[in-house]
Amino acid sequence: MQFLSDNAAPVHPRVWDALRAADGADAPYDNDALSQRLDAAFAELFGRPCAALWVASGTAANALALAALVDPHGAVICHRDAHIEQDECGAPGFFTHGAKLMLVEGADARIAPEAVVQLMGSIRRDVHRVWPQALSVTQASEAGTVYRPKELTALGACARDHGLKLHVDGARFANAVAFLKCPPAEAAGPADALSFGCIKNGAMGAEALVLFDPALADLVRYRRKRAGHLQSKGRFLAAQLLAMLEGDLWLENAAHANAAAAELAAALPGRLLHPVEANEVFVRLSPAEREALRAQGFGFYDWGANGARFVTAWNARSADVAALARALAAL
Amino acid sequence: MQFLSDNAAPVHPRVWDALRAADGADAPYDNDALSQRLDAAFAELFGRPCAALWVASGTAANALALAALVDPHGAVICHRDAHIEQDECGAPGFFTHGAKLMLVEGADARIAPEAVVQLMGSIRRDVHRVWPQALSVTQASEAGTVYRPKELTALGACARDHGLKLHVDGARFANAVAFLKCPPAEAAGPADALSFGCIKNGAMGAEALVLFDPALADLVRYRRKRAGHLQSKGRFLAAQLLAMLEGDLWLENAAHANAAAAELAAALPGRLLHPVEANEVFVRLSPAEREALRAQGFGFYDWGANGARFVTAWNARSADVAALARALAAL
Amino acid sequence: MQFLSDNAAPVHPRVWDALRAADGADAPYDNDALSQRLDAAFAELFGRPCAALWVASGTAANALALAALVDPHGAVICHRDAHIEQDECGAPGFFTHGAKLMLVEGADARIAPEAVVQLMGSIRRDVHRVWPQALSVTQASEAGTVYRPKELTALGACARDHGLKLHVDGARFANAVAFLKCPPAEAAGPADALSFGCIKNGAMGAEALVLFDPALADLVRYRRKRAGHLQSKGRFLAAQLLAMLEGDLWLENAAHANAAAAELAAALPGRLLHPVEANEVFVRLSPAEREALRAQGFGFYDWGANGARFVTAWNARSADVAALARALAAL
Amino acid sequence: MQFLSDNAAPVHPRVWDALRAADGADAPYDNDALSQRLDAAFAELFGRPCAALWVASGTAANALALAALVDPHGAVICHRDAHIEQDECGAPGFFTHGAKLMLVEGADARIAPEAVVQLMGSIRRDVHRVWPQALSVTQASEAGTVYRPKELTALGACARDHGLKLHVDGARFANAVAFLKCPPAEAAGPADALSFGCIKNGAMGAEALVLFDPALADLVRYRRKRAGHLQSKGRFLAAQLLAMLEGDLWLENAAHANAAAAELAAALPGRLLHPVEANEVFVRLSPAEREALRAQGFGFYDWGANGARFVTAWNARSADVAALARALAAL
Repeated sequence: MQFLSDNAAPVHPRVWDALRAADGADAPYDNDALSQRLDAAFAELFGRPCAALWVASGTAANALALAALVDPHGAVICHRDAHIEQDECGAPGFFTHGAKLMLVEGADARIAPEAVVQLMGSIRRDVHRVWPQALSVTQASEAGTVYRPKELTALGACARDHGLKLHVDGARFANAVAFLKCPPAEAAGPADALSFGCIKNGAMGAEALVLFDPALADLVRYRRKRAGHLQSKGRFLAAQLLAMLEGDLWLENAAHANAAAAELAAALPGRLLHPVEANEVFVRLSPAEREALRAQGFGFYDWGANGARFVTAWNARSADVAALARALAAL
Repeated sequence: MQFLSDNAAPVHPRVWDALRAADGADAPYDNDALSQRLDAAFAELFGRPCAALWVASGTAANALALAALVDPHGAVICHRDAHIEQDECGAPGFFTHGAKLMLVEGADARIAPEAVVQLMGSIRRDVHRVWPQALSVTQASEAGTVYRPKELTALGACARDHGLKLHVDGARFANAVAFLKCPPAEAAGPADALSFGCIKNGAMGAEALVLFDPALADLVRYRRKRAGHLQSKGRFLAAQLLAMLEGDLWLENAAHANAAAAELAAALPGRLLHPVEANEVFVRLSPAEREALRAQGFGFYDWGANGARFVTAWNARSADVAALARALAAL
Repeated sequence: MQFLSDNAAPVHPRVWDALRAADGADAPYDNDALSQRLDAAFAELFGRPCAALWVASGTAANALALAALVDPHGAVICHRDAHIEQDECGAPGFFTHGAKLMLVEGADARIAPEAVVQLMGSIRRDVHRVWPQALSVTQASEAGTVYRPKELTALGACARDHGLKLHVDGARFANAVAFLKCPPAEAAGPADALSFGCIKNGAMGAEALVLFDPALADLVRYRRKRAGHLQSKGRFLAAQLLAMLEGDLWLENAAHANAAAAELAAALPGRLLHPVEANEVFVRLSPAEREALRAQGFGFYDWGANGARFVTAWNARSADVAALARALAAL
Repeated sequence: MQFLSDNAAPVHPRVWDALRAADGADAPYDNDALSQRLDAAFAELFGRPCAALWVASGTAANALALAALVDPHGAVICHRDAHIEQDECGAPGFFTHGAKLMLVEGADARIAPEAVVQLMGSIRRDVHRVWPQALSVTQASEAGTVYRPKELTALGACARDHGLKLHVDGARFANAVAFLKCPPAEAAGPADALSFGCIKNGAMGAEALVLFDPALADLVRYRRKRAGHLQSKGRFLAAQLLAMLEGDLWLENAAHANAAAAELAAALPGRLLHPVEANEVFVRLSPAEREALRAQGFGFYDWGANGARFVTAWNARSADVAALARALAAL
């Protein structure tokens, strides 16, 4: 009864099928037929031209995107709790050759335009200061919350007004779209680059880096190779991405995970640290309560001194979820 | 009848089995049981302590290794034809933060100690000059040739005498060992770091970076994460590597590929551009001859104006090899 | 009547004399007799072995120091208002190859050990997180305040306990020592590296980077060259530094500047934004008051919406200082 | 009687005068009146719009220029003997974030268009290969030879045809112009960026980085600060550069140095390793001959096992030059 991480979940059967189907000989790197289909598949999904490149991790997708959007002497504005700040061992600093992350606050790990305006207003524009060139938001956020389309529109306008490119870290983008029940393009807002997550959602080892400015794609293709991320049997990564899109498997999986999280949230509404809008549930729990739950066989991470994080995955079993909901309600 | 690249070959059935077997839930990143077994498995293989980290590409393995061995203001000595110089889009420069590759010549893409001595002797040691800190050799080489154990011993001694660490790019290390029929440790020489290739040899997307100085491993673990190469479902990479080692599948596959190459070489001995010792055959062929072969359904890369490269893979079919051998012999 | 910046002040006559005296032919780079005297001169000043390298700017001194103290995947803890964070265009990120600055708060631009302890306690030590490896403090601080020796001892102990190296940005170190009237070594605390500023204090274009761990010096000498900071006529930089030390000119100049700042501070004690301990005076002033002062011929920078910064230099003229003090008192 | 290096020569009296004249208070960094005059002064010199930035070393000028011209995944073509390859401790790799230098051969340290064509023709243009984006030539070359204007025109056309920007390392540009007796613009060819050297020619610590594409200037201004090269008392660097241009002091000094070199060359014509066109004389000399000369009080560097380099500076004394010429002739 593991609620530790959606990274721990298995690979979806339809992804396995696609992997096996990709196992004929084909051209190496991204010259195979499957990789060549990605741009069109994602352009159809988002209703606008784009380039879509497979990479093996969300960190790689994010860092490659940011490096395409800012200069080494530039900066990316992000939330203090952003994955790119907290959990990537400085990958953005490596890929951008030293650009800064500038941190803003915001409830539930989300950024409001006012925070961007305030930060930009505090920076004197001269050669001594680092000047931000991009805004990065996470959809769904690190607190399991979701930006509404109109919020993204406002953030995008704010970014544009300040000369900032917009990056969306979509490690759990599927969960956001499943929550919003809107077209994917609206859930991405006016993004210039989107890290479209699949691994937490049933893939094995492939994320899509979607570049809505195709002019960036050539640059990123070089940088992907240079970062050791151009795998020689790339067809297996492309196969995973296409399987996720096929028949909207990505949305089906995410909806399942979201529903499980909602069930957990309903069990203990007064204890929620953040609204539950995706597949993460952050709950106020004392150490004793955590111990009691673990004694019952539930796996999860502590979240600070008096909290816990439960993550539901595409394969969450009803019985496990119901059991945890009961255990939470009984606290 | 493709002889383009061993990267185009399929995944071996036993690797598939291992991948499926790894699909229970386990801890993310490299905290799973399979990943935790790698150090011991490779230490046993090489008969000395080491750390073994999975990465998704040979370029990543090489670049991470080199970055652990040289300073940003240092240099790596390698052959002019080395993969790290010719085919990695400058990945060593990225990972090392700007260290140089210093090129030496040598027949059949191999480096002799004399070349190292001569280069080192030409560099004034002061703060104006870039000073080499590592030597990188490729085993089997880019010309399909193999360093003998005593040659590696001599190179290693030469390296040590000049304060150089030794890196072995073993994208086709298995083919070298299969040729030498010696213990793996002898085929690696006194390497400080070895990129142990599996992808060209039947894996899907995993290479092992083997660090014989375990003190380097902590550093490299950070840098792997920072480079976006710490995949969250790392158990699937570990599974591939362990499957390759299990029952010496890696040697069995390489021996098969080598035998096919030898069969091709025997068909046209007078035309060989390099001795055939691994799974690559470089042949003098005129454009007309190349065209004729292609018309018969054989796929391969041109090699310069009057040459061709044929690569045999773990799954080379006897009939295809025999057909190509006949076609070559008939030229 | 300029109080804009001590960078705008002229070169001290004794520095001019030393420059002229250095104009005989001598060996290039840092092989000249003057450059060779620096290590000993600074070792004598600080009473412990060190290497002292000239560089042309405080930014270069700071960034070279930090790059010697932290890995590319590491971090430096500094105050939110630190010069390295606010005013160096990301130089630390460039020289360290992407290490992070992690910001802490603290009154009057000074850091308390508690802030370091709290920050370190908040960082999970694993490969996903960036781990700080150095603490940087500014002496005198960006708010014109001075760390007391016992405060530095405590910070140094805290740093050591957490495995952090200690860097001191001493762009105005002379003003701190002149204020503390203590041995320089006590004003530097247990620093591993000190940027010893001279340019704001009467030099033309030379700062000393003092490395108290001589083992770092070789590394930094390479990096200095690599950064284009090994000037070919380095004797002129060495001459400036030696002139500053000769007869304690550095302390004499700083004491003069400090006294002028104290005189200004005394004129308007209720308006001070920070204690005045060095040569910077931060005052609460309305826009109308600022305008009035400027109309009387005083030059200075605005400091936020309702403040101003006055900087006194080594050459502050009594009449100017008295005039400004009167004008401030009359507000 | 030193002929070691023009870096060892003193500062010209007119440069000293300019330095003293710059010693009034003025705005810091490059906001002073002198720095503001540089763009116009160099635009007039070259007869076309440009931005001219002071920096403290030729290495900084070269590396900043190259970093503005190539991507981190790109390359610069240069001569094997180029200063940027041989004598800058990898500064181009640092500033460009890892771009490669690709080396070509050529008599007398000069590059012929054919060498560029051949190199470019050898590189497959795909994501695996590093693709050159700039060509760097040294005027006067490291062998003391000078490109003729028509040669630069041809190289420029070749560069343009291959999409390469053109950088000129002009550490001894003055000597080249003094030799060619042509307009400076012709001696620079269709350069995109020129490192205009002054330090070897009578300045103390200032070179001009001249960017003929003003669009690059903003980028380089940020990078100069980020590299610690925006000195706070920049007026003293600007003063040196303006003094060198004033009354063509730069040409006068270089002509004097060239004449001295020519006098030496005439003494031993059969022993010259390279044509003597600037202020460097490379001579075939046995160890015994070198020893004999040194015993007579002449200082110079060995050049390989059987050679020597004599450099003449702006202040070469007639008597010293005549004495050395006699000593050489007497060998």
